[in-house]
Amino acid sequence: MKRTLGTCYYPEHWPEEIWQQDAARMVEAGLTWVRVGEFAWSRIESTPGDLQWGWLDRAIEVLGNAGLQVVLGTPTATPPRWVLDKYPDMLAVDENGNPRKFGSRRHYCFSHFGYLQECRRIVTLMAERYGRNPYVAAWQTDNEYGCHDTTISYSDAARLAFRDWLRARYDNIEALNAAWGNIFWSMEYNSFDQIDLPNLTVTEANPAHRLAFHRFSSDQVVVFNRAQTDIIRVHSGTPIAHNYMGKITDFDHYDVGADLDIASWDSYPLGFLEDRVGAAPDQQVAYARQGDPDFQAFHHDLYRAVGAAKGNKPVQEGRWWVMEQQPGPVNWAPYNPAPLPGMVRLWTWEAFAHGAEAVCYFRWRQAPFAQEQLHAGMLRPDSQDAPAIHEARQVRDELVEAPEVQSKQAPVALVFDYVSEWMWKVQPQGQGLSYFTLVLDTYRALRRAGLTVDVVPLRPDAFSGYKAVFAPGLMYLPDAVKAALTQSDAQVVLGPRSGARDADFVMPHAPLPPAIPGLDVTVSRLETLRPDMPVALDGGGAITGYLEEIEGTGDVLLKTGAGTPVALRNGHLTYMAGWGDAECMDRLIARIGADAALTIRKLPTGLRTRDTETERFWFNHTTVPIEFEGFSLPPAGVLRIPLA
Amino acid sequence: MKRTLGTCYYPEHWPEEIWQQDAARMVEAGLTWVRVGEFAWSRIESTPGDLQWGWLDRAIEVLGNAGLQVVLGTPTATPPRWVLDKYPDMLAVDENGNPRKFGSRRHYCFSHFGYLQECRRIVTLMAERYGRNPYVAAWQTDNEYGCHDTTISYSDAARLAFRDWLRARYDNIEALNAAWGNIFWSMEYNSFDQIDLPNLTVTEANPAHRLAFHRFSSDQVVVFNRAQTDIIRVHSGTPIAHNYMGKITDFDHYDVGADLDIASWDSYPLGFLEDRVGAAPDQQVAYARQGDPDFQAFHHDLYRAVGAAKGNKPVQEGRWWVMEQQPGPVNWAPYNPAPLPGMVRLWTWEAFAHGAEAVCYFRWRQAPFAQEQLHAGMLRPDSQDAPAIHEARQVRDELVEAPEVQSKQAPVALVFDYVSEWMWKVQPQGQGLSYFTLVLDTYRALRRAGLTVDVVPLRPDAFSGYKAVFAPGLMYLPDAVKAALTQSDAQVVLGPRSGARDADFVMPHAPLPPAIPGLDVTVSRLETLRPDMPVALDGGGAITGYLEEIEGTGDVLLKTGAGTPVALRNGHLTYMAGWGDAECMDRLIARIGADAALTIRKLPTGLRTRDTETERFWFNHTTVPIEFEGFSLPPAGVLRIPLA
Amino acid sequence: MKRTLGTCYYPEHWPEEIWQQDAARMVEAGLTWVRVGEFAWSRIESTPGDLQWGWLDRAIEVLGNAGLQVVLGTPTATPPRWVLDKYPDMLAVDENGNPRKFGSRRHYCFSHFGYLQECRRIVTLMAERYGRNPYVAAWQTDNEYGCHDTTISYSDAARLAFRDWLRARYDNIEALNAAWGNIFWSMEYNSFDQIDLPNLTVTEANPAHRLAFHRFSSDQVVVFNRAQTDIIRVHSGTPIAHNYMGKITDFDHYDVGADLDIASWDSYPLGFLEDRVGAAPDQQVAYARQGDPDFQAFHHDLYRAVGAAKGNKPVQEGRWWVMEQQPGPVNWAPYNPAPLPGMVRLWTWEAFAHGAEAVCYFRWRQAPFAQEQLHAGMLRPDSQDAPAIHEARQVRDELVEAPEVQSKQAPVALVFDYVSEWMWKVQPQGQGLSYFTLVLDTYRALRRAGLTVDVVPLRPDAFSGYKAVFAPGLMYLPDAVKAALTQSDAQVVLGPRSGARDADFVMPHAPLPPAIPGLDVTVSRLETLRPDMPVALDGGGAITGYLEEIEGTGDVLLKTGAGTPVALRNGHLTYMAGWGDAECMDRLIARIGADAALTIRKLPTGLRTRDTETERFWFNHTTVPIEFEGFSLPPAGVLRIPLA
Ligand SMILES: [Zn+2]
Ligand SMILES: [Zn+2]
Ligand SMILES: [Zn+2]
Repeated sequence: MKRTLGTCYYPEHWPEEIWQQDAARMVEAGLTWVRVGEFAWSRIESTPGDLQWGWLDRAIEVLGNAGLQVVLGTPTATPPRWVLDKYPDMLAVDENGNPRKFGSRRHYCFSHFGYLQECRRIVTLMAERYGRNPYVAAWQTDNEYGCHDTTISYSDAARLAFRDWLRARYDNIEALNAAWGNIFWSMEYNSFDQIDLPNLTVTEANPAHRLAFHRFSSDQVVVFNRAQTDIIRVHSGTPIAHNYMGKITDFDHYDVGADLDIASWDSYPLGFLEDRVGAAPDQQVAYARQGDPDFQAFHHDLYRAVGAAKGNKPVQEGRWWVMEQQPGPVNWAPYNPAPLPGMVRLWTWEAFAHGAEAVCYFRWRQAPFAQEQLHAGMLRPDSQDAPAIHEARQVRDELVEAPEVQSKQAPVALVFDYVSEWMWKVQPQGQGLSYFTLVLDTYRALRRAGLTVDVVPLRPDAFSGYKAVFAPGLMYLPDAVKAALTQSDAQVVLGPRSGARDADFVMPHAPLPPAIPGLDVTVSRLETLRPDMPVALDGGGAITGYLEEIEGTGDVLLKTGAGTPVALRNGHLTYMAGWGDAECMDRLIARIGADAALTIRKLPTGLRTRDTETERFWFNHTTVPIEFEGFSLPPAGVLRIPLA
Repeated sequence: MKRTLGTCYYPEHWPEEIWQQDAARMVEAGLTWVRVGEFAWSRIESTPGDLQWGWLDRAIEVLGNAGLQVVLGTPTATPPRWVLDKYPDMLAVDENGNPRKFGSRRHYCFSHFGYLQECRRIVTLMAERYGRNPYVAAWQTDNEYGCHDTTISYSDAARLAFRDWLRARYDNIEALNAAWGNIFWSMEYNSFDQIDLPNLTVTEANPAHRLAFHRFSSDQVVVFNRAQTDIIRVHSGTPIAHNYMGKITDFDHYDVGADLDIASWDSYPLGFLEDRVGAAPDQQVAYARQGDPDFQAFHHDLYRAVGAAKGNKPVQEGRWWVMEQQPGPVNWAPYNPAPLPGMVRLWTWEAFAHGAEAVCYFRWRQAPFAQEQLHAGMLRPDSQDAPAIHEARQVRDELVEAPEVQSKQAPVALVFDYVSEWMWKVQPQGQGLSYFTLVLDTYRALRRAGLTVDVVPLRPDAFSGYKAVFAPGLMYLPDAVKAALTQSDAQVVLGPRSGARDADFVMPHAPLPPAIPGLDVTVSRLETLRPDMPVALDGGGAITGYLEEIEGTGDVLLKTGAGTPVALRNGHLTYMAGWGDAECMDRLIARIGADAALTIRKLPTGLRTRDTETERFWFNHTTVPIEFEGFSLPPAGVLRIPLA
Repeated sequence: MKRTLGTCYYPEHWPEEIWQQDAARMVEAGLTWVRVGEFAWSRIESTPGDLQWGWLDRAIEVLGNAGLQVVLGTPTATPPRWVLDKYPDMLAVDENGNPRKFGSRRHYCFSHFGYLQECRRIVTLMAERYGRNPYVAAWQTDNEYGCHDTTISYSDAARLAFRDWLRARYDNIEALNAAWGNIFWSMEYNSFDQIDLPNLTVTEANPAHRLAFHRFSSDQVVVFNRAQTDIIRVHSGTPIAHNYMGKITDFDHYDVGADLDIASWDSYPLGFLEDRVGAAPDQQVAYARQGDPDFQAFHHDLYRAVGAAKGNKPVQEGRWWVMEQQPGPVNWAPYNPAPLPGMVRLWTWEAFAHGAEAVCYFRWRQAPFAQEQLHAGMLRPDSQDAPAIHEARQVRDELVEAPEVQSKQAPVALVFDYVSEWMWKVQPQGQGLSYFTLVLDTYRALRRAGLTVDVVPLRPDAFSGYKAVFAPGLMYLPDAVKAALTQSDAQVVLGPRSGARDADFVMPHAPLPPAIPGLDVTVSRLETLRPDMPVALDGGGAITGYLEEIEGTGDVLLKTGAGTPVALRNGHLTYMAGWGDAECMDRLIARIGADAALTIRKLPTGLRTRDTETERFWFNHTTVPIEFEGFSLPPAGVLRIPLA
């Protein structure tokens, strides 16, 4: 399959007269894909039952005739105002109990049956009409589930649905009370109907209660999405995708992915660096026009795994796209700078290096109205070329001779699991401690060492074939996974907090965690630390934020200045008892890498690399030229070297 | 007209026995004016319909007999508790949907008809009784509209009134949908009755929606105020004022001013520096006991323009007062230091230098009870002289030989417009970017250059007679104003963001902004910048926060270190494509000043000057003596030099 | 009475089989006391009226048989979910009007009659059953009143009760209007039924209104607690305690204490340093594993005074305990480090040095479930010894030869009063200014000087026998206390803000404060200062935050660099007109100490001392050894030297 480009287009925003010219310009720019429809419900059905398909029929026809393939989005992220007239209680409710009102997008609660029914109706109509349309080559369900903090809702509908979900999970209330430890503080319930959502409690609610609500909220997204995929598959044979948003972790993307054919995500490197990466201020300045050098790559690798969640192929062969690629300044971050020239090309090639099938730029033409009027497009609002289209054309030309989409198992696996993410959120124990960040810090260290990495899910079958497996911070570690890691041939690095809780957020109390077969490590106590009190390690580096006291035997790979063990190894299993800073992680990876026969490089600041089957890619994420291993890369430079 | 002094007095707070002595002491201190009545409703009408005018009759009589002129305030800022019994839904509602309860002041929603009716009733009664009273020489409507964030209300009354306002503005719902670009995200309405207020939306509401709500909210203040002025004018021939509060920009002061004879404002230099100027911390320390050196002056110049809003005289001849002048520490800022000795005199003379007719000190005697018990007065709570009264006496003596109130057109005009202020609030695009601050920064630079400035409204007829016109940040620039600027003889400095949106917050998309006749400049892209990443200019200074990429021809007055044009001139029109820091602005003003034949000085830190018709004033805002052009000014010093 | 140790135990959390072994291990570890029952309501009464006493009978029997004495807690801090079914409106309501829901603890409003009745019922049942149980040697009412900000509630129940409270205090509405100064801003009421709670007002409510609500809220806690003590005393002759929480100041602990036999408090040095001490960041790092060197000691001294509130003994002989002592990392602070080895012992001995009868460690075994699963215990979740138990055993051994509980009047008294704490909260006048912190800063200075201190209440009879009395910040100073201080033989240090308001928060306006007989000082004006603008003193040190201008005669003990008096003395009365920094306070105490014939030492950083009747204690709160006066103390070291 060729690597392809695309864009997001809103024919309903523009006069029909210019559709044809737009289509022709898309083709000229080298685009294959055009996504349409995903916010157009009020134009498809302006009043209940009054369907207006004509314009969409014609738009698809014009685009298809020009040679483009259409990704058709279901419009359920933006129900028209009249849907709210029908279901006034369909809105999500925020943590303070306020309905999240109409007037922007994603104004619905995943648990509202009426709205779900409404979605089934419009998706059915759309699938019936376009399921066999020759130009409709793929589908997108809804848009950016969870964006704007919309996974969690404290509505009445959610409360009722949560009780049903609990009934199904625990069978009887005594079981729930026991599983949650509700004896504590007399929190025992007499019936499921007494259980409320865990907001506005006097002090924090039971972590078991909060974790259950996270699990439930995630499941509601899965159910909502599946309702759409089930309908589409009745009427269409083309692949179905959803466009996930960066660092949205409130629902399990693997679970949603199991109902999809393609994972895709919306990559906004500059916006993310400002509003969600969590980088230090000096890094934010250094990369303000390039984006974080690892954040996008991590998501690329994550969505390759999510793309395999359907289960019909290995993790590293997951199908995935960038459905929305930032093409210039956006409108929604605290600050919105313009990209360094060349970065749009770099971001595109970086996605291909990580296995993307397609990269679509959001959006075709900058809209002069409404919320995103300062979001750049490939065209300016006056239809002139914006800078991004020039870089897209360069990629178009480079793609001609480039290899097809490639997949190849990486030497290193890094586990990312949503349940642990929720557990750390529920119980960080130290301010700002986040599982996502712990995993990202590990990923950064692996990348600084020049390694190619697969992100893998928490599944017993996910580890075979790797030389090293990194599994930091997995608070919930099912026995089957423990067994798989114990039996693995890879160098395995676990900890901190491995297996610290059961599925209901209760600490296994005998033996204490991590209780991993073959690993003689017991966490006897743990502490969290102010950022201004790192614990220095013997030999360099430090632990920051989180540190466990461990008992056990084995090789001490890292220890504190006072001699307390921090990383302990038994055979191929290594337990890391704290959150290492960069120097600590570099030391650990050098050691593990040596034992796993990995090629470890020490890359210059901001240089990154990835191997595909036939090529080694190099990316310069900095604003200065980089010399390394005999080549020179300009700022924003991309280098592809054929592998022998 | 002589320059005069006054004070604010609450006879209802003190035993009637001391009124006469208070009045005599006011006269001794050189005061002409005494404001009364504006919070006294519960003493005028303690239960519905039971009017007690006697005490107020006597108070006015005592004050008038002593030789004072009374400013009579309508008491509508503080409806008694029983009014709320009558109209339980009259309260404003905050952004989170909570009613803003009784227990302080300004507890009403401008859109509530019942309360408006109640105001009409009490103002009618008051105007009937005192309209021809010989001692009542002026009126004040209500008190500090908008103070405590009270312009905007999310009440049911506001929602209904907003729909009516929209109906009147847009005629039909299709027009509104089109004007707002509601096609975006399927936000289209089927009827006006579906439109809600733009709070608590999932993510930001449509900027068009938010701007309309700002316009509406401002209009509600105008309507509320006009209801009072219409009634007062039936019964009284004396001038009507309102006392605006510093940096309250949620309603259009020019619009309210069009129904008033005198603009007045409440000047609290130390409180403002702590709670709203937004100065850098080192400036807050340096001026903690003197107040910001430009903030008060800017408001003086602004209210001179607002005082002319009725339209019967040129902008520079607007009638205006300081209705409340800080006399010592206040009670409401984060920190409340005492003024440097001499500053009360300086603040008073500064107001006169800017054309004030009167300066009234708030308040006569410090109240020992309730919310403002730590707000200094001219007297201490034990009736001893407080420090302020000594400085007032000094001004009293100085006024004897001083010229009368003077007005004279300044050489430089600076445009300030409320619609652009709302537009930047709705869409700052970069955190902390504010139109008010951009204008104030420009004003500071003009003042550092020793220039006398007129603030002018956004009206085609506001620019004649000036050598230079500065019009930064005017996102909405009507065609008639564009034409006036193009035809002006002045050096005109526009940008950034000039004409970036139409009246409904839609970007003019062909040609792109600013689209000003005679100015070959097109803004092709814009970016906002972290405060820690200024873009250095060639030759000194930098752009911070906001920067546009511009295309066009003309003289490049400023450019970046990389050579990109930042200020571009075509004839007398200059476009400034970013937010300049102090050095940048000084360079720009030096250049424009030279071409406009302005006398540019480089004033020492904290020294400020202003010319009236016959005098040049100098003010030392610092804590150290200043030597300049042959004179020496002590800290808090004021110097008046006759002009040849 | 011997000094004793104890622990908190939850038999309902553990299998009955291990109770006996737990009890034996407690005895082995040297524990005397075991607290049970205080969160067990859902196990005592799982549905309304279905009492299950059996397990509790057996638990008490097992513990008692092992030789332990039981402290029995009433379970009213955690009503089961079915109580809420009965009284859906029993929840407290937060400042924003949201009910504070079930799901953790303390989910009740003190003003709800239904819930109060429910508490009377369960406490009666418990007292009837266990009042004469031979093993129940003490009672604890409820748990940590006010914790999680639960003293103040804005519920409907609170509103109605507040009106009744006001009716009782003011008799008629005119009296209330006059006392509060409601004439200001027309806030006058026509009836008590118009008075609302002072939340969600447009700007701040009348300070008189807010103070009254603080007084009322405090009284509601007293009434709630007394309902329990009245019942328990009918059935039991053993002492009754309550466990106060650190720095909870929303209710008057002396008032609650008047109904108790023993004051106790819950001491979490590391948690407190992170979440409530308010120390500077460098102090937070320096003491992260030891806790603040003065915060616990201050509370010890405070609760000794609260323990005497019943009035049957002198202040210095109050009975008090540490009911919960931190034994390792806790779970609830922003960061939760492990204590420096030795600190659990140090904390225990420090409590004994200050007169504690008993120190109980919270908790026996770390719970593997629910909210406190990361709160350390004396045992790990797997029942192994945790580090704390070793230090407890060391204290056990040391206690054998140690003297009994001792009390001895200190040479210095420091007044702490809750009404002034509320007054400063209501009117800090400068951001962050807190009465508690002012008193703590004074206490720190006294401790740095090596002094032993009694905290005393604001009572005329509290000052006799002291060489020096420090009474900073007492905004409300009743005449009888003024008289007692005037007549005292001690050196008395007053100010700032002494007597600044009457009982209703009105400023005495003639003469101005402080108006203390024998002290010729008048506060003519006051100011608050940004933290970055200290006012330097002549001779060293500075005033920060708060500074008064004073008039008067007498010795100037401290003055500003400009010569303005800051501390003025008349005879034995000294008035301090500002908030001194550490150097200023050290200078003041050196001077006062000299005149009061106190022994002033200058202690090394982190070293603290206290004298009991027969011993001098030394404590090293630092991480490094300290040499002083011929002895050497290791980190966390405790030294007891017999007094001659
Ligand atoms: Zn998107
Ligand atoms: Zn005012
Ligand atoms: Zn506790």
